[in-house]
Amino acid sequence: MKILIINGPNLNRLGKREPEIYGTDTLEQINREISTYCSEEKPDFFQSNHEGELINQLHTAVEKYQGVIINAGALTHYSYALRDAIASISIPVIEVHLSNIHGREDFRSRSVIAPVCHGSISGFGKFSYILAVKALLEGFLVKSDRI
Amino acid sequence: MKILIINGPNLNRLGKREPEIYGTDTLEQINREISTYCSEEKPDFFQSNHEGELINQLHTAVEKYQGVIINAGALTHYSYALRDAIASISIPVIEVHLSNIHGREDFRSRSVIAPVCHGSISGFGKFSYILAVKALLEGFLVKSDRI
Amino acid sequence: MKILIINGPNLNRLGKREPEIYGTDTLEQINREISTYCSEEKPDFFQSNHEGELINQLHTAVEKYQGVIINAGALTHYSYALRDAIASISIPVIEVHLSNIHGREDFRSRSVIAPVCHGSISGFGKFSYILAVKALLEGFLVKSDRI
Amino acid sequence: MKILIINGPNLNRLGKREPEIYGTDTLEQINREISTYCSEEKPDFFQSNHEGELINQLHTAVEKYQGVIINAGALTHYSYALRDAIASISIPVIEVHLSNIHGREDFRSRSVIAPVCHGSISGFGKFSYILAVKALLEGFLVKSDRI
Amino acid sequence: MKILIINGPNLNRLGKREPEIYGTDTLEQINREISTYCSEEKPDFFQSNHEGELINQLHTAVEKYQGVIINAGALTHYSYALRDAIASISIPVIEVHLSNIHGREDFRSRSVIAPVCHGSISGFGKFSYILAVKALLEGFLVKSDRI
Amino acid sequence: MKILIINGPNLNRLGKREPEIYGTDTLEQINREISTYCSEEKPDFFQSNHEGELINQLHTAVEKYQGVIINAGALTHYSYALRDAIASISIPVIEVHLSNIHGREDFRSRSVIAPVCHGSISGFGKFSYILAVKALLEGFLVKSDRI
Amino acid sequence: MKILIINGPNLNRLGKREPEIYGTDTLEQINREISTYCSEEKPDFFQSNHEGELINQLHTAVEKYQGVIINAGALTHYSYALRDAIASISIPVIEVHLSNIHGREDFRSRSVIAPVCHGSISGFGKFSYILAVKALLEGFLVKSDRI
Amino acid sequence: MKILIINGPNLNRLGKREPEIYGTDTLEQINREISTYCSEEKPDFFQSNHEGELINQLHTAVEKYQGVIINAGALTHYSYALRDAIASISIPVIEVHLSNIHGREDFRSRSVIAPVCHGSISGFGKFSYILAVKALLEGFLVKSDRI
Amino acid sequence: MKILIINGPNLNRLGKREPEIYGTDTLEQINREISTYCSEEKPDFFQSNHEGELINQLHTAVEKYQGVIINAGALTHYSYALRDAIASISIPVIEVHLSNIHGREDFRSRSVIAPVCHGSISGFGKFSYILAVKALLEGFLVKSDRI
Amino acid sequence: MKILIINGPNLNRLGKREPEIYGTDTLEQINREISTYCSEEKPDFFQSNHEGELINQLHTAVEKYQGVIINAGALTHYSYALRDAIASISIPVIEVHLSNIHGREDFRSRSVIAPVCHGSISGFGKFSYILAVKALLEGFLVKSDRI
Amino acid sequence: MKILIINGPNLNRLGKREPEIYGTDTLEQINREISTYCSEEKPDFFQSNHEGELINQLHTAVEKYQGVIINAGALTHYSYALRDAIASISIPVIEVHLSNIHGREDFRSRSVIAPVCHGSISGFGKFSYILAVKALLEGFLVKSDRI
Amino acid sequence: MKILIINGPNLNRLGKREPEIYGTDTLEQINREISTYCSEEKPDFFQSNHEGELINQLHTAVEKYQGVIINAGALTHYSYALRDAIASISIPVIEVHLSNIHGREDFRSRSVIAPVCHGSISGFGKFSYILAVKALLEGFLVKSDRI
Repeated sequence: MKILIINGPNLNRLGKREPEIYGTDTLEQINREISTYCSEEKPDFFQSNHEGELINQLHTAVEKYQGVIINAGALTHYSYALRDAIASISIPVIEVHLSNIHGREDFRSRSVIAPVCHGSISGFGKFSYILAVKALLEGFLVKSDRI
Repeated sequence: MKILIINGPNLNRLGKREPEIYGTDTLEQINREISTYCSEEKPDFFQSNHEGELINQLHTAVEKYQGVIINAGALTHYSYALRDAIASISIPVIEVHLSNIHGREDFRSRSVIAPVCHGSISGFGKFSYILAVKALLEGFLVKSDRI
Repeated sequence: MKILIINGPNLNRLGKREPEIYGTDTLEQINREISTYCSEEKPDFFQSNHEGELINQLHTAVEKYQGVIINAGALTHYSYALRDAIASISIPVIEVHLSNIHGREDFRSRSVIAPVCHGSISGFGKFSYILAVKALLEGFLVKSDRI
Repeated sequence: MKILIINGPNLNRLGKREPEIYGTDTLEQINREISTYCSEEKPDFFQSNHEGELINQLHTAVEKYQGVIINAGALTHYSYALRDAIASISIPVIEVHLSNIHGREDFRSRSVIAPVCHGSISGFGKFSYILAVKALLEGFLVKSDRI
Repeated sequence: MKILIINGPNLNRLGKREPEIYGTDTLEQINREISTYCSEEKPDFFQSNHEGELINQLHTAVEKYQGVIINAGALTHYSYALRDAIASISIPVIEVHLSNIHGREDFRSRSVIAPVCHGSISGFGKFSYILAVKALLEGFLVKSDRI
Repeated sequence: MKILIINGPNLNRLGKREPEIYGTDTLEQINREISTYCSEEKPDFFQSNHEGELINQLHTAVEKYQGVIINAGALTHYSYALRDAIASISIPVIEVHLSNIHGREDFRSRSVIAPVCHGSISGFGKFSYILAVKALLEGFLVKSDRI
Repeated sequence: MKILIINGPNLNRLGKREPEIYGTDTLEQINREISTYCSEEKPDFFQSNHEGELINQLHTAVEKYQGVIINAGALTHYSYALRDAIASISIPVIEVHLSNIHGREDFRSRSVIAPVCHGSISGFGKFSYILAVKALLEGFLVKSDRI
Repeated sequence: MKILIINGPNLNRLGKREPEIYGTDTLEQINREISTYCSEEKPDFFQSNHEGELINQLHTAVEKYQGVIINAGALTHYSYALRDAIASISIPVIEVHLSNIHGREDFRSRSVIAPVCHGSISGFGKFSYILAVKALLEGFLVKSDRI
Repeated sequence: MKILIINGPNLNRLGKREPEIYGTDTLEQINREISTYCSEEKPDFFQSNHEGELINQLHTAVEKYQGVIINAGALTHYSYALRDAIASISIPVIEVHLSNIHGREDFRSRSVIAPVCHGSISGFGKFSYILAVKALLEGFLVKSDRI
Repeated sequence: MKILIINGPNLNRLGKREPEIYGTDTLEQINREISTYCSEEKPDFFQSNHEGELINQLHTAVEKYQGVIINAGALTHYSYALRDAIASISIPVIEVHLSNIHGREDFRSRSVIAPVCHGSISGFGKFSYILAVKALLEGFLVKSDRI
Repeated sequence: MKILIINGPNLNRLGKREPEIYGTDTLEQINREISTYCSEEKPDFFQSNHEGELINQLHTAVEKYQGVIINAGALTHYSYALRDAIASISIPVIEVHLSNIHGREDFRSRSVIAPVCHGSISGFGKFSYILAVKALLEGFLVKSDRI
Repeated sequence: MKILIINGPNLNRLGKREPEIYGTDTLEQINREISTYCSEEKPDFFQSNHEGELINQLHTAVEKYQGVIINAGALTHYSYALRDAIASISIPVIEVHLSNIHGREDFRSRSVIAPVCHGSISGFGKFSYILAVKALLEGFLVKSDRI
């Protein structure tokens, strides 16, 4: 199973940005750790600060990957375009967040992409990605119209 | 590590209740599957339709367990008393949901307990519990005041 | 046809509590009057001030009864757990209220259980129950996905 | 006891309009069934798609009838003029709805006439009318300032 | 004068729970201190994490006590059932809170029971109870329909 | 301990204004009664219908008093300037109200000064002041960042 | 100057409807009194319970009258069609109400026609009409784009 | 194909009413222009200021027409009865507006009939009708449950 | 009959301030015109930019005047203290506004003093005062609890 | 007349994405059909998933085109930047949507670009574009400040 | 150019009040520093805790000053009277704040005076005043109806 | 001190776009003027219509500049991604706007980036930039956790 891990705006600043919230690991270190975890086929990683590029990646992901993990950063809270991009592809998409988005500013507790994702994992720091990888690899997905 | 898995109102109806949303497994079957997953120390399970009993369980959990996984059912959306109970204990508490609560009725998209939980996993059916167990067993928890 | 009549919090105080709104009959007197009305099979009555016990009763009602009449008292306005309990059983459930809940405080005009009940009757005092009994006994129920 | 049964906008389309919600009986068939139910004095029926005519009927009803049953159709949700007409007459007025208005679109869950009606019955299809007739015929009305 | 002091959910955790907000005294220590303050007739104490048991206590309090002091914990913010229980009894009920509920999270600034209590005291820690006891013992209550 | 008791707009009308809500005692009578209660050092009293003068009094209170009791009248509901004045002084400030502000018009249930006061007492008529005096004299104040 | 006085829904019930709010005079009596007040040219009167007829009257008023006084009854609160009719004619239109619409139910405090009327008079019972007549007869109108 | 063009309240005032918004053409001129455009079968025209008559027309339209174009005027913003009338007929209905309703007062940006119309055209003045006619004549309609 | 006319903040700037909204007459000119209108006993005039002084004037008005006319300027929209001052006096108080407050900025369409005034007149420029004077002099006041 | 047709995020997925809502035609097929419709000068087409590129296109469109048709996809609902771009150019811009945006999720019923477009056409599938083309080619545009 | 610098409620407490937000400089020190900055003509300073006096100062400022700088303190958030006072004078008025009002409590992020000020500067501590002085002295003002 | 001045969407249209709001200077002219003002080290300028590029610039700014001035255009009102980018860098960032954003459409009065900027200057046209430059050059920045 080939997985794509997409990171949105400002996640390239991980380790440098507000470490008391997001931890001291850089995105590269986190990606390496995720790769180690996937002992067989390594996931691909994509990061962009452009909503448009994230959408493009999602569109083309269908052809090459069997699952997508996305941390959309702050776009989570307003990008209906990203939501439509996720809804437009048929492979499973899991939303992850490093911090517990419900324990922070009000605007962060609303995810406009959640309703079209298959599952959501937040609050485990870098381990949020690893749990999502596990969910994909072990087929922890529910078959349902609504979920 | 000893884990307590708490299920709130109506989860004893699993398998009998709206299977197109919640699946056909009963709670007992799910619990057995979770136990199997935990090869060494088996978790304890507790289910109640009483808010008060769930609070009592949380209070006493500190002495016997190193982690709690809670699916508070519909209490998720209004029980500030449950929230305070979670906030009052020092061991990690992970919130899980079978379905993606953001893809359903409006009132289900608000969790009043999320802000005081360490992490949140939803949308993976019974696997939501297993991912949470994994997070506890492998120490996938972020040390932080806020998370 | 065997009917269960469930009364929620504070309805045991009927006759003692704010008689200008709820009348001077006690719950026992009302129940007797309902029994008299059902000339053949007498309904069973259950009252509790515990949300959890009301949920338990609803769960087990499926096995013994062909219809449920519920006056959920103030839980009507916030107990999504009760709502899920009603949604989880397959026999018809009718919501009743003694007073016209729309003619009182704002918070009383919202029923969170109404959307999952088969019908709703309010404002006829004790006769609300009798109308509901009649509806069940005479099969006044509409077959529909949505109702 | 002479009863007037008033039907508001679009109820003349019953049987032709969205039968999955409103059933396949026409208004004429329903009215006939209600008449059958009232073995002695037959009720009168009035239907109009004009708010003004419904108000006129309510005004003159005082002289000829001892009770009114009204299904105001979609006017239920915004016609404060209808509300004032109901409030302006001294005979009992019962609000009925075919479907459970709380289980449908958001705007349908608000009734601006409910606070001035003596009682409210919804969700029993054509039987909603019959239950209301029964309530009037058997004097199932609570004497109260507020109800 | 015999007084009943009722404590709601999580107050049994006092001294162990978030001491920077609620202080380090346990509920037992606070109760002892209140007893000492009432030199003649000692008050009775009741604590429960069940909404239903709190309602039951309020119902039976009329027969044995001349006044009730209640700290409803987080139920303060949503339990309309508790509100109805208070409204249903004729002896004075005073609402107390340890912390100033207006200086904390938004949801804590709304009390659904306040409108039916005789008075409200908050922000004095354990002394909130003692001020309420004093108010009852010295008859510091206003006779009024509205208060 | 020297205490200052501040009364805001319209409290000079006490005894003349809506006695069914505020009682028949004049402010002078109430003040005398409070003085009697303080057997040793008598409190000072200040009343003004000007927001600005109330602010001035609060500013200068620091030098002469060890505690302030304030009934801000209707300014309670909108005067953020008064709130800032209270926040700007280091001695304890207790908010009092004659009536239970939560049992009246909607706008009265919001206090913009509550979050910066040390405690709040309402609904005991003139006794609200006496309870506040007692709280100050007996040191019933909680040391806390937040309260 | 020829004036048209328009009364909307339910005002034909004046004297019969809720006299504690609207007084005991009938609409005919009020109209006669207004006529007496206008010593020279008598105003014309029009009442209808139909929104459509009120709109028609407003449209044709331009040709025959120099001013319109309208009490739109409950249509005041939602009839944007009436608002557009008023905006579409060039003669002055004055809004009147018998009672002070701001001292009653919430929904009555919003007038959707006020923004397009030249002036508004409410709370003087039948005298509201007479004050409006006076305003028209004496030319008490402000020339302004906005009013 | 026979088309019915329905115009709601105040559209008979076109050309006389606020020409800076609605243009100087009268409704008759616009209708003539539309007729010219339909070279073969001429559409029928209906205008009324009565909600009830618009509903009646919609009901009977099914028998005689293959398509309806409606400019509901200000009823667009609140007439749920009109909405139900449109939903109750099986031929396509297109909503048109002369002006861009989104560029004006807030209340005009909400259309309660839009969700049940097949399409919506606004902002092209009289040409809005002609574009709708074209859409009907050329079969520019999408077959879908939702659209 | 002795009348007091009270003008609130910024009305001393009349004639100098935004003449396209408020006209070119100064307050002195308007007052003179009102005096002329009252052929017998002249009214007294009071203007202040201080909320506190307006409250003081209202308090003392009871002793000397039989009626008050108040244009509270922008205090209309937030001064609950002024509202309480009006409610605290037993003589009739009429609210006036120069412009139609409903035709301007949103915040101006809410009057917090309206619910406690006997009547309200707005949109007639300086003539608003003269209509209010007439209402008082001719006894155009309705006796009612609510108005 | 040279026309530019702009498509926003995810419209490149047409035919592949949720065909039950958007149909089975690809964007290329739709564009070809539009070109066929414009018998003389063919329009240019531009699609991008980047908000920034859509803005750039709009800026430069002034020099080369006489009209723009835009389907902004989900950016319709939040991109105030796109709105400003449309407002900054002087040629007519028409908003189109494939589906009736008012018949779907709540967030889709709000268009932040509508207030600055000349007209709006939605719900006709691919024909929405063709109607817009027709509107531009035939000069179906209203000259007005506001539209 | 003669400038008036107006400070509203509680700014006389600067240096004594919450120094972690407002700094340790007193208002006198800040004023001196501003004077030093204006090498030629010194500005005048006015501080008051009375809304009324601030309004009076603004009214008379027109005659003596060519520009006003105002820090309205907490009145910023609710004083529409102050807003009207600013709107009533023709010289430029600049709003300043010491702290970034958008980074604090919710109620502080709304300025009711901002819409009528020429410009706004916040977050630079005492330097906010100096930047405003500079803006006035160097004529950094935009001529525009709206700004 | 090296400063970076960032301009967001549509600011490249300055001088061409709505000059009555934004003035007639082009961005190039404004930039030149700013450069002239900075007699020693010239600032760098960056403009983009892409949210992503603005974020990239902010990220890399830390290495080369000591301060950033940003006019985010309409992204100000919804781009939480931009907000996070600003929060993620340690050098001071000042928000500027040409027009007074509080005096225009409602949506423009909310800035989602303001809470994480050091200061905010709006309403001075091109001089807003120059005041911000001055603030940076002269060190007009307050050291504070919150600002």
